[in-house]
Amino acid sequence: MLDFKLLKRDARTKARAGLLQTDHGTVRTPVFMPVGTRGSVKAVEQRELLEINAQIILGNTYHLFQRPGVEVLRNLGGLHSFISWPRPMLTDSGGFQILSLSELRKLTKDGVEFRSHIDGAYHFFTPEKIIEVERQIGADIIMVLDECPPYPAERDYIAKSVELTHGWAMRCKESFLNSNPLYNYNQYLFGIVQGGTHLDLREKSAMQLIDADFDGYAIGGLAVGEPAEEMYRATNHVTDILPEDRPRYLMGVGTPENLLEAVERGVDMFDCVMPTRNGRNAQIFTSNGVLNIKNAIYKFDESPLDPSCDCHTCKNYSRAYLRHLFNVGEILGLQLASLHNLRFFISLMEQMRLAIIEDRFVEYKEEMLAKMDKKKKEEI
Amino acid sequence: MLDFKLLKRDARTKARAGLLQTDHGTVRTPVFMPVGTRGSVKAVEQRELLEINAQIILGNTYHLFQRPGVEVLRNLGGLHSFISWPRPMLTDSGGFQILSLSELRKLTKDGVEFRSHIDGAYHFFTPEKIIEVERQIGADIIMVLDECPPYPAERDYIAKSVELTHGWAMRCKESFLNSNPLYNYNQYLFGIVQGGTHLDLREKSAMQLIDADFDGYAIGGLAVGEPAEEMYRATNHVTDILPEDRPRYLMGVGTPENLLEAVERGVDMFDCVMPTRNGRNAQIFTSNGVLNIKNAIYKFDESPLDPSCDCHTCKNYSRAYLRHLFNVGEILGLQLASLHNLRFFISLMEQMRLAIIEDRFVEYKEEMLAKMDKKKKEEI
Repeated sequence: MLDFKLLKRDARTKARAGLLQTDHGTVRTPVFMPVGTRGSVKAVEQRELLEINAQIILGNTYHLFQRPGVEVLRNLGGLHSFISWPRPMLTDSGGFQILSLSELRKLTKDGVEFRSHIDGAYHFFTPEKIIEVERQIGADIIMVLDECPPYPAERDYIAKSVELTHGWAMRCKESFLNSNPLYNYNQYLFGIVQGGTHLDLREKSAMQLIDADFDGYAIGGLAVGEPAEEMYRATNHVTDILPEDRPRYLMGVGTPENLLEAVERGVDMFDCVMPTRNGRNAQIFTSNGVLNIKNAIYKFDESPLDPSCDCHTCKNYSRAYLRHLFNVGEILGLQLASLHNLRFFISLMEQMRLAIIEDRFVEYKEEMLAKMDKKKKEEI
Repeated sequence: MLDFKLLKRDARTKARAGLLQTDHGTVRTPVFMPVGTRGSVKAVEQRELLEINAQIILGNTYHLFQRPGVEVLRNLGGLHSFISWPRPMLTDSGGFQILSLSELRKLTKDGVEFRSHIDGAYHFFTPEKIIEVERQIGADIIMVLDECPPYPAERDYIAKSVELTHGWAMRCKESFLNSNPLYNYNQYLFGIVQGGTHLDLREKSAMQLIDADFDGYAIGGLAVGEPAEEMYRATNHVTDILPEDRPRYLMGVGTPENLLEAVERGVDMFDCVMPTRNGRNAQIFTSNGVLNIKNAIYKFDESPLDPSCDCHTCKNYSRAYLRHLFNVGEILGLQLASLHNLRFFISLMEQMRLAIIEDRFVEYKEEMLAKMDKKKKEEI
């Protein structure tokens, strides 16, 4: 069983600070996990990830299965070794990507048949197959196969999807118990709670998974278009049910505001492409809100992207230089913006964690929301 | 006058090892200068350039004049400050780019009128204007305005071009003497020898420039399509004429082979986009020749790009990982390949310099040419 210790629970909210132990090191929660879908966090180099204190990064089973493929990963000693990443990793099962990217997908009780969006090849992913692939990839934390329904969807569809996902989760669990890691370290399996924004379906899904006893519990199927309040409500309901002594992971979330709200509701782990994707589109996250660095007002601006940031970009380069790099289309702009945005997200989590430990989480959260909101209004 | 000391002249060839002093530090020659056309060496970050021992980098006057423009550069304290580069810089005048990129260009005795390839705006660059712009950019070494004729061109055209370029060079020199640096360090002006592959025109151009007494002398108008032997012959003829106590810079050159041959003929400085441009196209320079990292033979290859290379890429990543990054189109592939290729070029220069100092330049050159050629044959 995954070693997860709660160091502190906030007295006024459900926020928690914990320690999650893996064979590749300790993860201090709450934590933001940069997304390295295909074995690279886009435009950021591995030593830069270490520098900004990325504690754990993601890979994606669907993408890695296709390229480079499990044969390469097995031969190169697994994903850690292949990409030279010494710290913990987590792989999503790729359920979401199969449904959003692949063609001609067909869901059955047995699994999902799909055509690759890369080469058109047919594949059939069963729960057993996913565990086999995740063993070959070799992340420290691996996820069960799930179906992530779109938003909005009929209640009936979601109810059936919860049943399907639960059946798959049980088979993933069994397959996990009946197999061993391929490399010299442990792997842990997380279940994924589904159920859309229906609290009763969420509850049913969570209870079933808890019965099966997973190393940790993810909340999936949110941040797919529903209003933020619905996401918070569903998250809050699920964390009320989940066991205190297991980590909770809210998948694919989110904005800095989302992170503050979800930590308050008892979530420990997050991943999102937003810092890198938005960074590549010149959207810069700062403690005073978001800025578009291509804006003409930064033409002569000698100040760093975020004066309160400790990242390499902010310590060495001006807004004027970043604006220039984006204007002329230099790759360095993507690199420096992605690095900064990731550091902003990671730093936000570090500050939340410290605030929890120092009994001032609510104050910290209110202060951050006010600062970020203020800037937004200034720009409007 | 630029402080340039020759530490060693090879007894058997014209190869030299020198020290070039600028207010931003010392440059050990022979030297390869990475090209940072628009204020960034493509896909490589400034601290990485320091790490691979890039001693001096280039900027381009034509490009920087257009974006970010001299107003920004003046306000941000010049190009060094704007891009956070602490070491020496050199700006090309942009003569080559005006002729190759801009539209509706019109050459007159007074200068060159052209339409920007970015926004279509009309500009008139006179020699005086170029010096003014290069003062505002603020590189340590700046180049005169020249015309770089295409290859092949009629002898008459080249003869007239040499006259035009010489007239411009004299006006640049005068304008340089009648102006001052804008920032708190010295700038030095290099003349550019033209004349195509005609040795008598090269000689005339060189003699005229020597009379005008420049801080250093560039050899321009080569590596534009002529056979390598023609380039070596013209280079050799010019370095026979140029004063021993001034640095010689062969513009836009070249392949590792070109560098070995030109150093043997007495050249001290080089610049070329090849390491970064080819790197972005998956072409990797190694001590055993060039490899295309997308090739299927590297699919399972755990070895570094070049086992004898000391760069961060080679110390941390496998050929299999680089191949994967290029196959899936990850930006990190461009970063790691560019970093390695630049280090290969810089390391080659460092090794040549050491060989000159240790009286074994000819042996080193022959050994390197043989190794690089061997690999080429293997791949065929």
